[in-house]
Amino acid sequence: MKNLVNIYITLFITCVYANNTKNFMTLKDSIKHKNLIQFVNPFIGTKNMGHTFPGATTPFGMVQLSPETNQQPMFIDGKYNPDTYKYCAGYQYDDSTIFGFSHTHFSGTGHSDLGDFLIMPTTGKLNLEPGNANIPQSGYHSQFLHKNEFAEPGFYKVELDDYNILAELTASDRVGFHQYTFPKSEDSHIILDLISNIYNYEDKNVWTFVRVENDSLITGYRQTNGWARTKKVFFAMQFSKPFKSYGHKKYDNVQYNGFYRRFNEEENFPEMAGKNIRAYFNFDTVENEQIKIKFALSNTSAAGALKNLDAEIPHWDFNKTKLETQQKWNDELNKIVVETETKAEKETFYTALYHTMLSPIIYEDVDGAYRGLDQNIHQSEGFTNYTIFSLWDTYRALHPLFNIIQPARNNDMVKSMVAHHNQSVHKMLPIWSHYANENWCMVGYHSVTVIADAIAKETTNVDLNQALKACENTANVSYFDGIGDYINLGFVPEDKSSSSVSKTLEYAFDDWCIAQIAKKAKNETVFNTFLNRSKNYKNVYDKGIGYMRPKLSDGTWRKDFDPIDTHGQGFIEGNALNYGLYVPHEIDNMIAMMGGKDKFSNHLDYIFNTEIEDKYIEKNEDITRDGIIGNYVHGNEPGHHIPYLYNWTNHPYKTQERVRMIMNTMYSNGEDGLCGNDDAGQMSAWYVFSALGFYPVTPASNDYAIGSPMIKNAQINLENGKTIFINTVNQSSKNVFVKKIEVNGKSINNYLLNYNAIKNGGTITFYMASTPK
Amino acid sequence: MKNLVNIYITLFITCVYANNTKNFMTLKDSIKHKNLIQFVNPFIGTKNMGHTFPGATTPFGMVQLSPETNQQPMFIDGKYNPDTYKYCAGYQYDDSTIFGFSHTHFSGTGHSDLGDFLIMPTTGKLNLEPGNANIPQSGYHSQFLHKNEFAEPGFYKVELDDYNILAELTASDRVGFHQYTFPKSEDSHIILDLISNIYNYEDKNVWTFVRVENDSLITGYRQTNGWARTKKVFFAMQFSKPFKSYGHKKYDNVQYNGFYRRFNEEENFPEMAGKNIRAYFNFDTVENEQIKIKFALSNTSAAGALKNLDAEIPHWDFNKTKLETQQKWNDELNKIVVETETKAEKETFYTALYHTMLSPIIYEDVDGAYRGLDQNIHQSEGFTNYTIFSLWDTYRALHPLFNIIQPARNNDMVKSMVAHHNQSVHKMLPIWSHYANENWCMVGYHSVTVIADAIAKETTNVDLNQALKACENTANVSYFDGIGDYINLGFVPEDKSSSSVSKTLEYAFDDWCIAQIAKKAKNETVFNTFLNRSKNYKNVYDKGIGYMRPKLSDGTWRKDFDPIDTHGQGFIEGNALNYGLYVPHEIDNMIAMMGGKDKFSNHLDYIFNTEIEDKYIEKNEDITRDGIIGNYVHGNEPGHHIPYLYNWTNHPYKTQERVRMIMNTMYSNGEDGLCGNDDAGQMSAWYVFSALGFYPVTPASNDYAIGSPMIKNAQINLENGKTIFINTVNQSSKNVFVKKIEVNGKSINNYLLNYNAIKNGGTITFYMASTPK
Repeated sequence: MKNLVNIYITLFITCVYANNTKNFMTLKDSIKHKNLIQFVNPFIGTKNMGHTFPGATTPFGMVQLSPETNQQPMFIDGKYNPDTYKYCAGYQYDDSTIFGFSHTHFSGTGHSDLGDFLIMPTTGKLNLEPGNANIPQSGYHSQFLHKNEFAEPGFYKVELDDYNILAELTASDRVGFHQYTFPKSEDSHIILDLISNIYNYEDKNVWTFVRVENDSLITGYRQTNGWARTKKVFFAMQFSKPFKSYGHKKYDNVQYNGFYRRFNEEENFPEMAGKNIRAYFNFDTVENEQIKIKFALSNTSAAGALKNLDAEIPHWDFNKTKLETQQKWNDELNKIVVETETKAEKETFYTALYHTMLSPIIYEDVDGAYRGLDQNIHQSEGFTNYTIFSLWDTYRALHPLFNIIQPARNNDMVKSMVAHHNQSVHKMLPIWSHYANENWCMVGYHSVTVIADAIAKETTNVDLNQALKACENTANVSYFDGIGDYINLGFVPEDKSSSSVSKTLEYAFDDWCIAQIAKKAKNETVFNTFLNRSKNYKNVYDKGIGYMRPKLSDGTWRKDFDPIDTHGQGFIEGNALNYGLYVPHEIDNMIAMMGGKDKFSNHLDYIFNTEIEDKYIEKNEDITRDGIIGNYVHGNEPGHHIPYLYNWTNHPYKTQERVRMIMNTMYSNGEDGLCGNDDAGQMSAWYVFSALGFYPVTPASNDYAIGSPMIKNAQINLENGKTIFINTVNQSSKNVFVKKIEVNGKSINNYLLNYNAIKNGGTITFYMASTPK
Repeated sequence: MKNLVNIYITLFITCVYANNTKNFMTLKDSIKHKNLIQFVNPFIGTKNMGHTFPGATTPFGMVQLSPETNQQPMFIDGKYNPDTYKYCAGYQYDDSTIFGFSHTHFSGTGHSDLGDFLIMPTTGKLNLEPGNANIPQSGYHSQFLHKNEFAEPGFYKVELDDYNILAELTASDRVGFHQYTFPKSEDSHIILDLISNIYNYEDKNVWTFVRVENDSLITGYRQTNGWARTKKVFFAMQFSKPFKSYGHKKYDNVQYNGFYRRFNEEENFPEMAGKNIRAYFNFDTVENEQIKIKFALSNTSAAGALKNLDAEIPHWDFNKTKLETQQKWNDELNKIVVETETKAEKETFYTALYHTMLSPIIYEDVDGAYRGLDQNIHQSEGFTNYTIFSLWDTYRALHPLFNIIQPARNNDMVKSMVAHHNQSVHKMLPIWSHYANENWCMVGYHSVTVIADAIAKETTNVDLNQALKACENTANVSYFDGIGDYINLGFVPEDKSSSSVSKTLEYAFDDWCIAQIAKKAKNETVFNTFLNRSKNYKNVYDKGIGYMRPKLSDGTWRKDFDPIDTHGQGFIEGNALNYGLYVPHEIDNMIAMMGGKDKFSNHLDYIFNTEIEDKYIEKNEDITRDGIIGNYVHGNEPGHHIPYLYNWTNHPYKTQERVRMIMNTMYSNGEDGLCGNDDAGQMSAWYVFSALGFYPVTPASNDYAIGSPMIKNAQINLENGKTIFINTVNQSSKNVFVKKIEVNGKSINNYLLNYNAIKNGGTITFYMASTPK
């Protein structure tokens, strides 16, 4: 199969060369590209809690078409169903059933939503009930075997054993392309389950509206009330073949139905509306007949979906779309060409790189129309609008990575954030936003960091003053998450707002980022205000015990306090031990405050070397023993900079040792290759950076912390046409220590790589050794 | 008060003359206008089942801002609450409570919906419960007295006794303007009840989304699932004064609320969303302080509502808007200037004329954007989009009246219907449509009649072939209401589709109308097809019993049959006795078929002279003894042409006698002045025509049937600048018989007035007498 892909790509280039002058430059360039999609295994992270999905999508695509292997209700008898969490991305590798293929997914998140528009092909007597995954033939779901399943970027296929149907999926940016190969049957069906949701519960579906426009075209929308409170997704669904009949079943308790009672609405009636609807379309099929479906999404209207459909896939050539999409992936993956010791490492690396390009996603129609936070339809002027901003996670390494390999998209994302601010009734930048909604998840206002990082790296042309104003506004919304008290008291008081230490630390760093923007904008007042605020981390440090600690609004420390417990101790997804080290803008000062370099180094050793007690693990569903080294929890982002902090002590070699250890033990090319949620690409971005030998400990600064590269060598092809070459000397799995680093031929000694040294290309050479320098 | 209005109008004209050149021509013209709004009593029809509303609106305005005097649940313990029906328009004159003022209403319909965005001003301890109308102070509702209530076109006011608040309402086309005069209070409130609906029941509210944009501007929308299945109304609500605080209460059973739990959403939090929400805004008020609210609607978006707000009322001058709107009304009312014997007759006449201009309503934003039937946003190109088409009622006389006094608007309505067809997944013209939904109410496809009438009268520039195609498509939707069988068998079989005789008769007439369009379009094939179909009325006439009668699909007559019962006998809102006379396109043939002129005249006598048995009345909520003459039921439209049918017999004088009798007994200037639902203006249009002395028995023909005028004389000011003068000689309440009719000086003897004789103006003179000719 892999060889076939190479042939296809060559063929495709030839075809497109002839037909598409607009894309010519890109494709000509790509002729020299390597086939790197072969090293991507979309199944990595689908086992345990990686929360990735194996389905088909373009880079940053709006449609992410992927199988659902179960349908879990979020509540059973009014109680939260703990199995919900496993299905954040809809797919669990250990399952042996497929319930269908839906068009929207999060990649790696630790909370969920989406799963819109589930399609399932079946044969035999129509069964509209999904059934129980544990009971074969109990519903429309099908058994499948992994040996009959295959996934690569932009393509997924599986044999549905219950129906003898081969399902193949690909996608363009806004259109899912399904290809189902049926057996001979007079009872072939395509089910469109409009009830199915990820994180599903009664009343999640607010409204569904479906029109059967003709014998092969369906349009409509669904509104849900989930993590995104007011979420609307519109669609246009085109069949390659007219159905012979169709219908739907409504599962609502309808008290009043106007005058629709004069029709038999359930069969062959082209209008369906309600809260909970399953539709079906019936076909006769001959042996091996393929029924194809193009399923376009829009966030503005059904008309928008039709526009997207017509613009992106005006044909029925499944392979053409698949190859176009795979070409896009290859173009993106070729932005970093690496050589590694082992194929496994290469697969781990490229899958991580792949996982950094599954969100944020494009969130506008082909003509630039999109639904804004105010639920009005806006037009993106001068940018492409994006959504899914898991910012508490992704500001750390994902957006900094984008500033190197996706600066144009990151600029679009920055502008999308400013647009969000402009549409926000709070005048706030995104916190955790998706699908024209703010879901308020996690702490901090980290859009400001993303913007500041892009401004620092000079990868954005956002209006500086407008961006600064948006950041200021965001940081001053007094009713949000303790900000009012934070401004007044210099810290978030735990008795007023929980996770108060995490909030104080994140706000302080965010404030430093705002100060950096103000500096660029030459706005001294704002600079001073926010630089002052950025010192607030000091106010939650309890010198007496040597830990960051929750403080109360009367200024006293909270009495009950356990620096290791991750719940109710002033931290979120962390504790005083690890999250308490989060002062990325003043690391030296923090270390001094905490007793100096050696004491701090010892503290880091303590984190990595002290076995965590079981009682602390059981409480947190994100953490398994696999994702832990001592008390270091790689699955949670507040730790991500910690292994690099040794650089600020007298023991940088410990950074080198630890990051290699983490890469080796916390990542692999197996389905269980992620030790925790990928968190919208942050975990993978950590890996990509670390594998290349450096990491953005302080986003919005120009410094990266040096680690220990996993790769043998790498070539980073920048969008400005320049290239960064990363070479290693004496690289091996044993030689994890960095003896010397040369940047553009000059040795550096402070373990900091400056952005300016590489932004227009350059060469970094790591001299590796088996013992510390 | 009436005199004051005159002064205002003069003042207003002077003001606008100075400020507004665009409207200058209209206003200059209007200087010579009489003040006719003084003769309109918006309370006519608010008692019993007229289903009119007394609130403020412009002619055909999108906002119809009117008090709700009760809040009835549509179902109590799962059973239909019979009091629901009384509140089709929200207001019942016998009530003594006001629950608030909402922005959308039907006028005169026999089924309901709307009542969007109820606003209630209160003082004292905030109470968000509406309370029980029978228990004073049991909720936010207030007692009121009719002596403290006043209504005229474009203006309504009432004292709210419980709060000592004077409420005044006016409106522009798309904006409701509230003016509340408060007492001194530190506890003044404006409640925005987003749960309240006309025809309300659990789950009617699908979704509500509200943003508090700043301290005085609210935007949002509500989606309901009612008679209009997928109805969205957007709003922008601007206060004249900042509120001091605000909040909302959500009445949903929320199983899952994302991460909003980190806020106190209920107080001063600017985003509200859910199914059932009541919001409130708190103020301090000094004695007699006025708080004004401009409340704009849109059917496209909150942005659209803001656009409408800014365009239509860019100021806070309540009187200015009131006077502008009253000027519009005066302009419209002056289209027919009548003199009558009594002031009461003039009030009855002008209120009827007023009631013909409350629907259809404008249904687009100021920039022409509107929500189509497909739920996409469309742009009206070359027309203004209208909604609320109660066509089974209004094709009879309302649209024919529009062809005389509102040809431009009627042309817009025709084009709105064609746009509806183009957006319809069924490719059908409206049946009974409102707010971007088809509610499928009543029988027939009467858009075709409206279109054919406009084409016959040459008042539309709709594309003839496009219109014809839309009519053909509509008449051939085989799954709609027996059309398939009707086409195949020549009649609708009762065993397949109830009300089969009504359907057959209405379809036959509609088909004749389509044939008339085909004739104009010179499409012989379509003409022949539909002319043939128009003969289908013959197929449901049972010669054996001399009645139209339900036939079964095997061709036999249904055995059980009662020609007087109005339920389950093949008719709807009628019976064989009256609805069985509905062949308006072939009256002579029908009469011949039924035994000739004298037999037919006797049949008409029988209808009017035979007391209906009580058992037939009790079944029908539309009919009261007041609306009945013998077996003639004026409250139901199938009878509307019946008094005029004597013209086709040897006893036209009986038409004259009957129509005067009906005008005198079924209409008055009291609150109970309508004997049944006004039916979106059809009952009133019947009156306007009849009062002028003629009636469109056969819409889409050029003939009107002569009746007996009520007016002394009338001047109809046509939009083309020409005038029709209607004079009477010897008019009196006794002289109901028409001795002679002269049209443009020539006597006519066939009791038919030809449209061509008056379309460019003319003079009709009725010579009246106390005895038949």
